[in-house]
Amino acid sequence: MERKCRVALLTSGGDSPGMNAAIRAVTLACEQHHYECIGFYHGYNGLMDDQAVNLTSELVNPYLQQGGTLLKSARCKSMLLPEGPKQAANTLNKHNIDALIVIGGDGSFRGMQALSHHWSGQLIGLPGTIDNDLAHSDKTIGFATAVQTATEAIDKIRDTANAFERVFIVEVMGRHSGHIAFNVGLATGAESILSFENFDPEKAQAYVEKLAVQIQQQQNNKHSSFLIILAENLWPDGPSGLQQALKQTANIDSGVCILGHIQRGGSPVVEDRLLASKLGLAAVQAIAEKQHLVMLGEVGGNLIATPIENTIQDPKPVSMYWLNAHEEALKGF
Amino acid sequence: MERKCRVALLTSGGDSPGMNAAIRAVTLACEQHHYECIGFYHGYNGLMDDQAVNLTSELVNPYLQQGGTLLKSARCKSMLLPEGPKQAANTLNKHNIDALIVIGGDGSFRGMQALSHHWSGQLIGLPGTIDNDLAHSDKTIGFATAVQTATEAIDKIRDTANAFERVFIVEVMGRHSGHIAFNVGLATGAESILSFENFDPEKAQAYVEKLAVQIQQQQNNKHSSFLIILAENLWPDGPSGLQQALKQTANIDSGVCILGHIQRGGSPVVEDRLLASKLGLAAVQAIAEKQHLVMLGEVGGNLIATPIENTIQDPKPVSMYWLNAHEEALKGF
Amino acid sequence: MERKCRVALLTSGGDSPGMNAAIRAVTLACEQHHYECIGFYHGYNGLMDDQAVNLTSELVNPYLQQGGTLLKSARCKSMLLPEGPKQAANTLNKHNIDALIVIGGDGSFRGMQALSHHWSGQLIGLPGTIDNDLAHSDKTIGFATAVQTATEAIDKIRDTANAFERVFIVEVMGRHSGHIAFNVGLATGAESILSFENFDPEKAQAYVEKLAVQIQQQQNNKHSSFLIILAENLWPDGPSGLQQALKQTANIDSGVCILGHIQRGGSPVVEDRLLASKLGLAAVQAIAEKQHLVMLGEVGGNLIATPIENTIQDPKPVSMYWLNAHEEALKGF
Amino acid sequence: MERKCRVALLTSGGDSPGMNAAIRAVTLACEQHHYECIGFYHGYNGLMDDQAVNLTSELVNPYLQQGGTLLKSARCKSMLLPEGPKQAANTLNKHNIDALIVIGGDGSFRGMQALSHHWSGQLIGLPGTIDNDLAHSDKTIGFATAVQTATEAIDKIRDTANAFERVFIVEVMGRHSGHIAFNVGLATGAESILSFENFDPEKAQAYVEKLAVQIQQQQNNKHSSFLIILAENLWPDGPSGLQQALKQTANIDSGVCILGHIQRGGSPVVEDRLLASKLGLAAVQAIAEKQHLVMLGEVGGNLIATPIENTIQDPKPVSMYWLNAHEEALKGF
Repeated sequence: MERKCRVALLTSGGDSPGMNAAIRAVTLACEQHHYECIGFYHGYNGLMDDQAVNLTSELVNPYLQQGGTLLKSARCKSMLLPEGPKQAANTLNKHNIDALIVIGGDGSFRGMQALSHHWSGQLIGLPGTIDNDLAHSDKTIGFATAVQTATEAIDKIRDTANAFERVFIVEVMGRHSGHIAFNVGLATGAESILSFENFDPEKAQAYVEKLAVQIQQQQNNKHSSFLIILAENLWPDGPSGLQQALKQTANIDSGVCILGHIQRGGSPVVEDRLLASKLGLAAVQAIAEKQHLVMLGEVGGNLIATPIENTIQDPKPVSMYWLNAHEEALKGF
Repeated sequence: MERKCRVALLTSGGDSPGMNAAIRAVTLACEQHHYECIGFYHGYNGLMDDQAVNLTSELVNPYLQQGGTLLKSARCKSMLLPEGPKQAANTLNKHNIDALIVIGGDGSFRGMQALSHHWSGQLIGLPGTIDNDLAHSDKTIGFATAVQTATEAIDKIRDTANAFERVFIVEVMGRHSGHIAFNVGLATGAESILSFENFDPEKAQAYVEKLAVQIQQQQNNKHSSFLIILAENLWPDGPSGLQQALKQTANIDSGVCILGHIQRGGSPVVEDRLLASKLGLAAVQAIAEKQHLVMLGEVGGNLIATPIENTIQDPKPVSMYWLNAHEEALKGF
Repeated sequence: MERKCRVALLTSGGDSPGMNAAIRAVTLACEQHHYECIGFYHGYNGLMDDQAVNLTSELVNPYLQQGGTLLKSARCKSMLLPEGPKQAANTLNKHNIDALIVIGGDGSFRGMQALSHHWSGQLIGLPGTIDNDLAHSDKTIGFATAVQTATEAIDKIRDTANAFERVFIVEVMGRHSGHIAFNVGLATGAESILSFENFDPEKAQAYVEKLAVQIQQQQNNKHSSFLIILAENLWPDGPSGLQQALKQTANIDSGVCILGHIQRGGSPVVEDRLLASKLGLAAVQAIAEKQHLVMLGEVGGNLIATPIENTIQDPKPVSMYWLNAHEEALKGF
Repeated sequence: MERKCRVALLTSGGDSPGMNAAIRAVTLACEQHHYECIGFYHGYNGLMDDQAVNLTSELVNPYLQQGGTLLKSARCKSMLLPEGPKQAANTLNKHNIDALIVIGGDGSFRGMQALSHHWSGQLIGLPGTIDNDLAHSDKTIGFATAVQTATEAIDKIRDTANAFERVFIVEVMGRHSGHIAFNVGLATGAESILSFENFDPEKAQAYVEKLAVQIQQQQNNKHSSFLIILAENLWPDGPSGLQQALKQTANIDSGVCILGHIQRGGSPVVEDRLLASKLGLAAVQAIAEKQHLVMLGEVGGNLIATPIENTIQDPKPVSMYWLNAHEEALKGF
């Protein structure tokens, strides 16, 4: 009897909605290919500590609609130290794993690179992060849900901002890129979007002065509220720093909201369920095709395999189209 | 031809979901009674400045489902100074208003009291605040929606907390009472609820130590996450103060989320739409019955009119039932 | 060592959101009382067939937020035949059960009565049905969620009805009572609500003529859409019967939507989570207090135990207050 | 002083979520280009009857988040008769319109073609339909929201289907194509998807027999529910026809839900808000570039202008990728 191919799977780094849909798709595709499918809990930590679970359609099916990750996740610094990858390789060898699928972000992919020096199996990456900061896939798994969640939250803030004709500064996630900020800002009709792409911290004061003029112009025109979407990790001292600067510069009062971790959870929107399902199927197909050290992504509607090192090195800029659209027309005042 | 009764209406203080449903119900009931219905924008400020609008069913109908308040709102300190009530009375007299309905919280009701010394018309209050801190109505307009919104947000935080088996401190609104904290805490299965009703700031360190023991016990039992619901304005230095205390006392890491103003907006849930509709109808009925200086509320399913001064003086404690239920059984670990 | 009290639990009849929250509360309360807690799958069918599962906090905790019932449900006609109750009693005796908690509607409670003739343990009922058609509890578990779900669906239908200035007939659930119809109708600002409480099938044609006049009046006034909420099981031939009658009587075109089973599922709203938690705790307390053949409900904010036979016999009428409010003022046109 | 370019705009055919976002974007872009922007109510009917409104940012801004269309819509058969286009041309000439933007589906685009024979201004089409049945744009405005709404509704049906381990047939919209059916089916983990692309009505009985085998196999494997997504206009006698066929062929009971018009309304999801904003901006840009009789769409992330006649003639098939994925792996049983 022929030996079955054995596929392992883990989720690593910040969890994102749709990871469960990807786990489900990998599991179902393995069943179809007659592969064994083994999950490891807690990301690379669980791989090093051998926290394995057999994945079956019966186990994973109910998770399609759920946020988080049934395999748990973790950030794991020791994968970038000498011992971590060796331990991980030991576990994989012990379980006779042929291929490992890692769902995560760039840190997780660096772990794959490190592991590749100590383990000879196939390594396939899937882009799973709400921040959308991985090149070679138009969107990452979880991004669409995070943007939808933030947008719905800001729609609510708009209600109370309108009632008080008030300025609000809303901080959204995104790590070091403005994908969430720009998508959310355009979807909510924010009057200002402030992110890495259009802000130079050395010119913060000039920006505040320009913003103050915009706010005062709009309030003179009787528009009822003014929302500023602010990317996290951008403004010195965060949103309350901007709040104080507006107060000191132009005596403008504003409220602050930090959306925080609500952007990370929740049932995935359709777009994430489908992207995750598609990439999960493709990952098992890629294993069958003997691919190695690639990330699978969707670009312009097509599935693309890109060497892992490129996904780590290459930037993923926010579309200038949206930047310009907002600067020129879509501000709503 | 008989002179029509003229009813005025304003929303004051923090806006709350359902205020629009109340405005609609007042307007429709006035049409049915053949009363004129005039709204004033921006709370008492707009009353002082004479910012009036005729309210008709055609205008108000589309707002039933919407958060915020179409009449805008404001906080108005001058109503508690000598000049404010006089100005407000002038506007009401100029418009020949017979009765004024105020939708707001205790601050807004103090404004009604002040106005009553300068104006001879009828004054009717409706409890509109997300904080549920007004006695003589089981719930205030907006409370149910705020609790639902916070609960859905925390359900999302639970996903990511589970994925990382992590401790989260989530700050909810409530001003100086724990109605939101306890309702949200029980609805989300929070492992700990920390509010004015069960916390003495002088014993903060003792509380931290007890909490640390609970967290460690639960994590030993492999439960996957630990949510602490924290009332705003409670812990010294807010949620990050508690975060630091847990770190220093027991080396426990935790995340912090401040839900903030998302709790204030959004389409009202059914409970708020119905409560607001009922109280709006009742306000016009109360005017027909020549009531004065009362707040209308719902207690045990019945409509009750209570003198305004009692609603300001009397406390609205959180049910001991829920406190005990959580202490004894509903913590989920 | 003292023998532990053994509590069994099942869900029966149509599932309703919040059943899982009740199962969780019963389980947690049993742990607190040091009782054993055993669930039976598939309602009375699983009791007859001995499909038991040990319920622990670890198992039930993740279900607090989820619709449906983890214990599954079923309708079971054989409980009203001679053999069913005997078989059920056998299983209960085999497991040394002291008390059985049944979450369901009036059919399920009839099963409890039948069982009481063959089994000597305690029997406690909890009102679990979306229809709210059980007396002696202001609301039943699941009702609030069903109303919220239907209301959100109809808010969407309102959008498209407004775009086309169109008449829509929307059928909602409720079995043989109008609790859902009236609550949904008032929450959505429906122009007409048609249910058992205000409709006599022998006068259907008169009703259609009156309705046609209302529609034509409103359309002359340029209001943009007209929603008719129709209770299920009411109109001869259902909503399409009414649709045809409007066409034939007054040449009025209308669309039809049958909301159907979407009203039965979904994550329970806060109100249902809290009601279910409260009643679940109370059920275990009632067992400790040796109560028998009662249903626990909440009336005017207080927990009440009512003999099962009364809950079956007594009607649960829709509040005349709401009927009148809609007839007189809240129609929105 | 230079004469300003005058742009007209209407929404036509079935409304779809995001139409308001497109109207807003057109209006804001016109303000930026210093163009006048005039809307016509009720689709082509309002164009023939001269129901004009000046569109300003202040008017349109609050509609970004709202379903339906503030310009109302209508189906208009007379645009395909000789007189309709002439009347429409008269109104456009009377208002000195330079360009007309039509947001709608293929029927609306046929109206544009007819109009082009009687009017010399520019004609620009935007794809607005939930059905996604227009070629030359990956998605149409409203499709993503309709799929999300249907998916959330079916997630609720899954709860109750699981509780009863029951078969459900759920009819979704889509006119004559399976875009909604396949996207919803894959997003919900439906066990079967039945649409024009994989069903031949002449082989209906063979299909029922195959389906019955699948259901029985799955139920033997103890999977808990079985959802069949059925495209509208497909099965002879609709979903109840399939229900009867399953009963007669294999004695399988099933429930039926027709999602209907809830799929058409509601606040647009982010994807629709962004697509609509992008296409609205592009439409005004296309006017500046003197384009004519084209539809603007987004293909692979790029904006594309396609002659209207091609959008009407060319088919828009459902991706074979998804068909195969479901047939082979993603059925969930």
